[in-house]
Amino acid sequence: MEYRRLDYECVKEFCHKVYEDYGFTPEQSRKITDVLLAADLSGIESHGVQRMVRYHKEITEGLVKVDAAIRTVKETPICATLDANDAMGQLVGIRAMELAMEKARKTGIGMVAVRDSNHFGIAGYYTQMAAREGFVGICMTNTEAIMVPTFGRQAMLGTNPIAFSMPADPVPFTFDAATTVVPRGKLEVYAKRDGVIPEGWALDETGNPSTDASRVLGNIIGKTGGGILPLGGAGEDSSGYKGYGFAMLCEIFTSVFSDGTTSNYIYKTKGRANICHFFMALDHGIFGDKETLEKKLSVFLQELRDSQKAEGCQRIYTHGEKEFYAAKRIAREGIPVNPKTYEEMRQIGEFTGALPYLPL
Amino acid sequence: MEYRRLDYECVKEFCHKVYEDYGFTPEQSRKITDVLLAADLSGIESHGVQRMVRYHKEITEGLVKVDAAIRTVKETPICATLDANDAMGQLVGIRAMELAMEKARKTGIGMVAVRDSNHFGIAGYYTQMAAREGFVGICMTNTEAIMVPTFGRQAMLGTNPIAFSMPADPVPFTFDAATTVVPRGKLEVYAKRDGVIPEGWALDETGNPSTDASRVLGNIIGKTGGGILPLGGAGEDSSGYKGYGFAMLCEIFTSVFSDGTTSNYIYKTKGRANICHFFMALDHGIFGDKETLEKKLSVFLQELRDSQKAEGCQRIYTHGEKEFYAAKRIAREGIPVNPKTYEEMRQIGEFTGALPYLPL
Repeated sequence: MEYRRLDYECVKEFCHKVYEDYGFTPEQSRKITDVLLAADLSGIESHGVQRMVRYHKEITEGLVKVDAAIRTVKETPICATLDANDAMGQLVGIRAMELAMEKARKTGIGMVAVRDSNHFGIAGYYTQMAAREGFVGICMTNTEAIMVPTFGRQAMLGTNPIAFSMPADPVPFTFDAATTVVPRGKLEVYAKRDGVIPEGWALDETGNPSTDASRVLGNIIGKTGGGILPLGGAGEDSSGYKGYGFAMLCEIFTSVFSDGTTSNYIYKTKGRANICHFFMALDHGIFGDKETLEKKLSVFLQELRDSQKAEGCQRIYTHGEKEFYAAKRIAREGIPVNPKTYEEMRQIGEFTGALPYLPL
Repeated sequence: MEYRRLDYECVKEFCHKVYEDYGFTPEQSRKITDVLLAADLSGIESHGVQRMVRYHKEITEGLVKVDAAIRTVKETPICATLDANDAMGQLVGIRAMELAMEKARKTGIGMVAVRDSNHFGIAGYYTQMAAREGFVGICMTNTEAIMVPTFGRQAMLGTNPIAFSMPADPVPFTFDAATTVVPRGKLEVYAKRDGVIPEGWALDETGNPSTDASRVLGNIIGKTGGGILPLGGAGEDSSGYKGYGFAMLCEIFTSVFSDGTTSNYIYKTKGRANICHFFMALDHGIFGDKETLEKKLSVFLQELRDSQKAEGCQRIYTHGEKEFYAAKRIAREGIPVNPKTYEEMRQIGEFTGALPYLPL
């Protein structure tokens, strides 16, 4: 079956309607939709409307509390710790990054650690919020354990992504990466093809390297051992302990700073996700002339793009460039939607009553 | 030829004497020595007394200016930008992290960006300084370009290490890693053996993968193309663009924030290194009860160490653990010194007049 191309504005309206039907305010529904569709626009299908079915389950089963009130646990002029009380992750993320920027406007920096939240979509959404307002943005989140530490065979850390943005011309710099070699979604794609994943991506239940996508996924779902390797792969030869270390950095800024739940306990308490996030907005103007520093970055990014290509390669990308151009194209041509995802959207629309808004 | 074991206190005295002979004050010589020997104590031979010959060259040729005065370019209560004026990197690093901690004591955070410095030893030294004083420490430095960006064949970024420490019990957490797959020193070790490096470490001058250590090193020295791959390896299959992204993060915090020199121009101006650093001290007590947060980290680190091992593996390490235990052992048993390094120390001692202090 072929992907459908759905008009961006129409999908937006459908999503608005769905989230309003769950009980979110129009303003909240607009925010959730914006984060969701930012992923589809960037070509990150895994985190776009494809996730509606997961959120549907979490909202209807009460893991996400529609009327949750986010509570401030601690606050100083440069930081805050929030208890999200199981609120929708996207609303938590936007609120937290706005708070970080508010502080950065006054002091130069704002840092917000959050506990007891839910899945919040792409981390890069929040860092780009900051970059649009002229800040350097940093965002991290822990997730359900899926990464096996070096020399282990038990998933103890999440994909634990780290995102970072800084304004630059003509394309802002945005790096947004899981600290695992690959995200779980990539294994699912391979499982649907011939089922063989490259060496260095995952371990089986004994802790030995595996190229069998279905076996690894089965173990992850059944929690029978094994999992995805940290960036750098198995053992120490290609420095897998570095990916494990970056995942730890994420873990410390999210669950440790917020006194929340470490990855190995995420989704382990009945009815709660307990996901933790971290947000930072930094006004680089405190270090020097803002325009000069952004120019310096823009020049270096251009030098990277202009540098000599490997044999057979046409182009060197800087981070965020692919997504930046994809967004322009997809907004124009429509969002490509997998038939399975479309069917899920149809069922969700039927459930909530938003079906008449589902674009054809 | 065999490694010698040199008494730690005797090596320290020899180093003091050498740096005093170059014209550094006793206090400065003590600081430089402390950074240098911290590497040897941690078992990081590449950054210990083995580097004395490099520093000797840089000091005697004037790249490092013994009487350099570090200048404050810009300062706020939470940050500072320093121009190191070609000072000895270790002195710059200690001064900058002390300044960051001074600010963190008052405001909760201190960030210091530095330009026009020299090689400063191991980044983890400075983050551990912060952790010993009860702070979270972050430190980064750019270096001479040796990393090839994804799809490129020209070295554009340094090994660009990122270091991070947080107090924990019984062993503090310290992550200190180059964002390349491996550091240059590892290629040198392989070149001395059979010359074959694993796939995924380096590219030849055409941008194709190479397992020939000597060819890659020759190209790096001759600047004829190729170089070391970012963490994650070549292309996108194992996410090499993530290592490239972390190197960019380092580049932005160091050279961009300080309005300094990007990796691709390091050591390109005659008589100057132009290396840039970044230091952060963060009082995690602004997020919650300090003891509670450190306990949370300590518990998670223990859970990682206790988690199930891969078949054939005895132990899971947390970051900084190996170095922590190595330091106790090496302080007791003496510093293992390569005969080539020992001969370099002898020649340096002869040159400066410190020879009578060289331990046998």
